[in-house]
Amino acid sequence: MTPPSERLSLNQITTNRWSVAEAAEGCARAGIGWIGLWRDKVADAGGAAAAAEAVRAAGLRVSSLCRGGFFPAADQAGRAAAIEENRRAIEDAAALGTDVLVLVCGGLPEGSRDLAAAREMVADGIAAVVDDAAACGVRLGIEPLHPMFCADRSVITTLGEANDLAERFPAEWLGVVVDAYHVWWDPYVEREIGRARMLGFHIDDWVLPLPQGALLGRGLPGEGCADLPRLYHTVSDAGYAGPIEVEVLSESVWATPGEEVLARLVSEVDVALGAARTAAG
Amino acid sequence: MTPPSERLSLNQITTNRWSVAEAAEGCARAGIGWIGLWRDKVADAGGAAAAAEAVRAAGLRVSSLCRGGFFPAADQAGRAAAIEENRRAIEDAAALGTDVLVLVCGGLPEGSRDLAAAREMVADGIAAVVDDAAACGVRLGIEPLHPMFCADRSVITTLGEANDLAERFPAEWLGVVVDAYHVWWDPYVEREIGRARMLGFHIDDWVLPLPQGALLGRGLPGEGCADLPRLYHTVSDAGYAGPIEVEVLSESVWATPGEEVLARLVSEVDVALGAARTAAG
Repeated sequence: MTPPSERLSLNQITTNRWSVAEAAEGCARAGIGWIGLWRDKVADAGGAAAAAEAVRAAGLRVSSLCRGGFFPAADQAGRAAAIEENRRAIEDAAALGTDVLVLVCGGLPEGSRDLAAAREMVADGIAAVVDDAAACGVRLGIEPLHPMFCADRSVITTLGEANDLAERFPAEWLGVVVDAYHVWWDPYVEREIGRARMLGFHIDDWVLPLPQGALLGRGLPGEGCADLPRLYHTVSDAGYAGPIEVEVLSESVWATPGEEVLARLVSEVDVALGAARTAAG
Repeated sequence: MTPPSERLSLNQITTNRWSVAEAAEGCARAGIGWIGLWRDKVADAGGAAAAAEAVRAAGLRVSSLCRGGFFPAADQAGRAAAIEENRRAIEDAAALGTDVLVLVCGGLPEGSRDLAAAREMVADGIAAVVDDAAACGVRLGIEPLHPMFCADRSVITTLGEANDLAERFPAEWLGVVVDAYHVWWDPYVEREIGRARMLGFHIDDWVLPLPQGALLGRGLPGEGCADLPRLYHTVSDAGYAGPIEVEVLSESVWATPGEEVLARLVSEVDVALGAARTAAG
C-alpha cells in the first residue's frame, strides 16, 4: 500500500494562518499532493472558483471540504437556513473539485436538552440535502466528534452512531469520516471501522492537558497518546486507501511556521502511523 | 417513589473545603440523609473509624466511598501496589458502613498508547480484589468516565463498556455507577441503563465552556444541558431506588459557602430531575 507520507493531505486548519493559496503552495513545496479546505478560507480566497484555481495552479487536488452540518436549530427558520447553507456547501465542494463534504452535524439548539430531537434534526437535514449532493456528485461524510463536543458542535458522537445514521441513506452518497482525535478512546472503534463507509481518515493526536474550551489542544500525529498505528492499520485493513488528512486545531501548532509544520508531517507521519519500513525491512 | 430530595446524598467533593465532620453536620442541618465520602478526606479525619463516628454522630448514612480503581500501571510492581491500595479501600468502605466502593478505573500507564492492555489491567485488578470485596460485604461500582478522561483517569469510558466489564464478575459484587456528567451524551445510554447492575446514581450537569484541564467545570443539577429528567426517569424505570448522590467538581461551587450549596440542592433537585409535582398535582 502507498505509505501515508505519499497520501498526505493538509487539512488547512492545521496551518490556520495561511490562505488557500499559501497553504496550496506550501504543500507543493513540501511534496504534499492533497489539501482539505475550509469554507471560510475559500470565501476569503474569493470563492470556490478562485480557490479551485489556486489549488490547481499549485498542482494539488482537494481531498475534502469542511464543512457542512450544524443542522439543529431552535426553530424552523433556523433549520431551513442551515439546510440552505448546506446546499451552498455542496455546490462549493463540487466547484472545488472534491467529492467529499465533511459534516460536523451540530450540537443542541440553544436552550434545549433534547438530544433525541437534535439527532433527528440532523437526520432530517441530511435527508433534505442528499438529492442535492447526488446531483452535484458530492458525497456527505458524517464526522462523529468527540463526546466532549456533544453540546455545542456535534450530537453525533461515536462512529457507531455515525454509521447507524449513514446507513439510513444511500451508500453512494452518505458515509463517515474517521478522525483519530474524536474516536481513539472508543472501545468499539475497530468493529465500527469494519462496517464504516469511509470517506476520509483524519489524523491528529490526543495531548493533555486540555486547554480552556477544549477545542484548540490537539497534537500533531505522534505527539500524544492516541494509538494511531492501530487506527491506521484498522482503516487500511478495512480497505481505505484514500488521502490521509492531517487536521490539527492547536494554538501552539498555529504559532509554528507552516513550512516547519509541513516538513515535520512529511518526515514523521510514516513512523507516527506505524507504517515506516524498519531498518531491516 | 420517594422523591429525589428525600433520597439525596452529598458526595463530599461537592463541598470540597469541608472536612468529613463539617460535611456530615452540614447535611444534617440541610436535611440530607446520606453522604458519599472520599478517602483523602477520610484519612484527614483520622481514618475510617473516626470518620464513621463523625457521620454516625450527625445521624447520616454513607452511600458510597470514592474511590478505588486506578489499576493500570507501567510495571508489575505498580499494578500490585494498586491492587493493595484497592484492598485498603475495600476495608475502609466496610469500616465506614457503606457497601459501595466506587471504582475510577485508571487511564493509560505513563508512556503507553495500548488501550486494550490498560483495559485488561483493569479487569485483572478487579479480579484480584473481588474476593476481598465479597469477604467485606462491599460491592464494587465501576464508574465509566466521560471519554475526555480516557487518557488520564479511566479507560472505561461508556456505560456499555462498564456493563460488559461488570458482567465478567459475579452480579452480587460487581456493578456500575451511573454519573450524569459522564454518560449524558451517549446515544445508547437508555439501553445500557436498562441492563445495568446499578449501584449508584450521581447527578451533576454539563456546562460550557470546559475549563483548562476539563476536570473542575461541572454544574449543579439543572445548571447545564444534560437531560437529567430523562436519566432520572430511565434509572427509576430500571428499578434504581437508592441514594441520589450529588457530585460536583467545580471551582465556582467550591467558592460558594457549603450551606448555600446544600440549601439550593435540596430545594431545586426535584425540579432539576423532572420529579417535582406540578402546581396542579
